[in-house]
Amino acid sequence: MPVGLDKLPPLHPVPGIRLGTTAAGIRKPGRRDLVVIACDAGTHAAAVFTQNQFAAAPVVLAREHLARKIPRALLINTGFANAATGDGGYADARACCAALAQALGCAIEETLPFSTGVIGERMPVARMTAGIPACVAALQAAGWKDAAHGIMTTDTVPKGSSRQFELDGKTVTITGIAKGAGMIQPNMATMLAFVATDAAVAPAVLQRALQTAADDSFNCITVDGDTSTNDACLLLATGRAGNRIIEDDASAAYRAFAQALDAVTLELAQAIIRDAEGATKFVTVEVVDGRSEADCREAAYAIATSPLVKTALFASDPNWGRILAALGRARIGRLDTNGVSVDINDVRVFERGAVAASYSEAQGVAAMRASEITLRVNLGSGQAVARVWTCDLSHDYVRINAEYRS
Amino acid sequence: MPVGLDKLPPLHPVPGIRLGTTAAGIRKPGRRDLVVIACDAGTHAAAVFTQNQFAAAPVVLAREHLARKIPRALLINTGFANAATGDGGYADARACCAALAQALGCAIEETLPFSTGVIGERMPVARMTAGIPACVAALQAAGWKDAAHGIMTTDTVPKGSSRQFELDGKTVTITGIAKGAGMIQPNMATMLAFVATDAAVAPAVLQRALQTAADDSFNCITVDGDTSTNDACLLLATGRAGNRIIEDDASAAYRAFAQALDAVTLELAQAIIRDAEGATKFVTVEVVDGRSEADCREAAYAIATSPLVKTALFASDPNWGRILAALGRARIGRLDTNGVSVDINDVRVFERGAVAASYSEAQGVAAMRASEITLRVNLGSGQAVARVWTCDLSHDYVRINAEYRS
Repeated sequence: MPVGLDKLPPLHPVPGIRLGTTAAGIRKPGRRDLVVIACDAGTHAAAVFTQNQFAAAPVVLAREHLARKIPRALLINTGFANAATGDGGYADARACCAALAQALGCAIEETLPFSTGVIGERMPVARMTAGIPACVAALQAAGWKDAAHGIMTTDTVPKGSSRQFELDGKTVTITGIAKGAGMIQPNMATMLAFVATDAAVAPAVLQRALQTAADDSFNCITVDGDTSTNDACLLLATGRAGNRIIEDDASAAYRAFAQALDAVTLELAQAIIRDAEGATKFVTVEVVDGRSEADCREAAYAIATSPLVKTALFASDPNWGRILAALGRARIGRLDTNGVSVDINDVRVFERGAVAASYSEAQGVAAMRASEITLRVNLGSGQAVARVWTCDLSHDYVRINAEYRS
Repeated sequence: MPVGLDKLPPLHPVPGIRLGTTAAGIRKPGRRDLVVIACDAGTHAAAVFTQNQFAAAPVVLAREHLARKIPRALLINTGFANAATGDGGYADARACCAALAQALGCAIEETLPFSTGVIGERMPVARMTAGIPACVAALQAAGWKDAAHGIMTTDTVPKGSSRQFELDGKTVTITGIAKGAGMIQPNMATMLAFVATDAAVAPAVLQRALQTAADDSFNCITVDGDTSTNDACLLLATGRAGNRIIEDDASAAYRAFAQALDAVTLELAQAIIRDAEGATKFVTVEVVDGRSEADCREAAYAIATSPLVKTALFASDPNWGRILAALGRARIGRLDTNGVSVDINDVRVFERGAVAASYSEAQGVAAMRASEITLRVNLGSGQAVARVWTCDLSHDYVRINAEYRS
C-alpha cells in the first residue's frame, strides 16, 4: 500500500499533446504496456537521462534522435528494458521507432523510444510494432490517465501531477506522469517521467528548468541506492498557451513557470517514494546548518541509504544510534559531534554528544510510529540545507525483489 | 545458519597471553558478556580503529591510553556500545578501566576498553566492575574459546583463527578472535578483533603489518554498507617465541610473519561474512583488469552493496542485469562497456555488450544456487584487481535488524 498516496489527481490535458495506450501483450497478456505520446509540430523538448554507464539502447537512440530533430512522438514500453542487449537491442529500438514513424507519417529521428523492465533480454519487436496502430488510434488529449497506467511496472498505483497558472493573462498547464518503485537513487533511477506544458519556452531555458527541477526532485530520492540503465525524464513544451515566449531565466515568467514545474516534478518524485517497493513509511531526511549543500546532501544520503536506519524505521524502533552511525561514516568534512543534534519529527533525541535530557523512549516510539517521518539532523557548522526523500526497508522489499521475474 | 563455517578451529595458546571470561549480566543474565585479555610485561601492541566520526567513548579512551603506555590488559563488554553517551559515557569507560587496573595492579593507562552493543545508552558500570574479579580469576592461556564466545552479540557462532609457523628455528603462534555480523563495511565495522602472537616484532613494523592485514581483510568485507562507532582490531606481540626481533619489513622473517597474520585476519573477516545477519550465501566479488586497484575496489563495492544484487543472490535468480546496473553507477572512470565481461562462478553470462552466446538460463540458475558464489567482473581496461566479500540480503536480515533491541 502506498504511503499517503491518494488516487491519481485530475490531470489537465495539455493543448498540443495527445496520448494513446494499449495492451500489446509485451510480457504478459491483458496489461496496458505500450504508450505513444504525440506532440504538435513546433514543440520544444528538454531531457535528462541516466548517468549509468550501461545506458540502455533506447537511451542511446533517444539521445541521438534528440540531437538531430525535435520530437513528434514518444514510444514507451514496459516488460523489457532493452538494456545490455548489444547491437541487436539497438536495432530493435530502431525498428520500433521506424514503425511508429511510419504510423504517424514522420521521420524516424522525430521519434523517441523509452523502455523499462528486465535488463538483458531482447524485446519482442513484432508484438510491439503490432501494438503501435492501436496506440495511435487511441491518441487523445485526455489520454494522461491511461498512459500513467500504461508505464507502470512494479508500481502499485499510477503517478501523475498537474498544475495550472496564469502567464500574460493566459492559463498555462503543466502535466506529468511517472513510473518507478525500486532501483531509485540520484541521477535518475528506474524511473521514467513525461511532463508536458503548453507554455512557450525557449529550448535552452526549457532544458535549464528541467535540469533544476530534476535535481531538486528525482535526484533527491532514494529507495535502495541502485540506479538504472533506462532512466529518463522528458519535458515537452508545445507553446500553445499563447504566452510570450520565455527566453530569460531571470524573468518573473520563468520563475512562475519553474515554480509550477518544480511542484509537478516534486509531486511525481515523492509519489515514487510513497509507492516504493515494500514501503510502509514516507521519510524526509533533512540535514541543516552544514558547511555546504554538498555536505548536507552527502550526509542525508548516508542516513537515507543505511539499511540499519531503514529497518529501524520499518520496526518503528527509535534506535537513533543508527542515524549517528550512518552520519559518522558520511564522506563529509570533520564534524564537531558535540554540535550535532537529531530530531525525529518533533522529538529531540540527541544533542551535545548524548541523548537529549528531555528525551524519553515513549516519545521516540510514538514519533517512529507515524507513517510520515522527518529525520532532522543539525550539523551546527554552517547554513546550508539539503533534503532527501526515502522509505523504510521492509520484509516486502526483499520479497518483491527476490521474486521479481518469477 | 552460517555459510560454510564449521565449528571453531583449534586456537593455539599464545605464550604471554591469558584470557578470562564471565557472565556479568550486563544486558541479559546468564550470558558470557565480559572478557579480560591480559598480556605479559614487554608486549608490543598495534591497533586500527573505526573511522566513524561518532567514535565511541571506549575508542577515544583506548587511543589515549595507547598513546601513553603499552597495554597490560584489555576489557571487552557486549550489550552496550557506550557510543553517543557524552561525557558520562567517557567517565563510565574510565571507571571500568580503573577497576580493571586495580584488580590487576597496573596503571589505568595500561588498560584498554572495548564495547559493542546498542548505541546511545549508558552502561551499567556497577555490574561491569562487579564482574571484573571473576574475569581476572578465570585468566588462563587456554581461554581463547571462552573469550570468542564472550565477545559475541548478534553473531550465531564464535569466530577464531590460529596459525603456527617456524621462525629462526622457533615455533611462532598467531591466534585471533573476532565478533561482528552486521553494520559491516570498510574502515572497520561493528567488528572487534583481538589477535595475539608470541613473535618478537618491533612496534612500527607490527603496526604496519596490522594495517596491511586489516586493509586486505576486515576492510574488504561488507554486509550492509554501515560502519560502526566501536570497531577496533588489536594486535598484541608478546615476544616470547624467542625469534630475532623483526625490525625490517623487507626481511624474509617479516614476510613469513605477515603471511600468517594475513591468513588469520582473512579467516576472521570471512567468518564474519559467513555469519552475517540473515546470510544464506557467501559471495566473493572479484573485479579484474581495471585501470587501478581503487577503481576495482569501488566497482566491487558498488556490486557488493547493491540491495538488488543481494536480493537476487538470496533468490538464486541469475538476474545479471542488476550486476551491470550496479557496475554502471560505480564512481570509476569511463568504461568501454563492450569490453566488460561478467561470470557467475564458472558461467560466462555477459560479454561484448550483451548476454554471452554460450549462456543459458539453466546454467545461470545452477550457478546461483551454490552457497558460495564468485561474481567475477572483467573491466578489460588494465591489470589491477580487487576482491570484496559479502553476503545476500534475505528476509532474515530485515527480521533481525527490525527486531534488534526488542
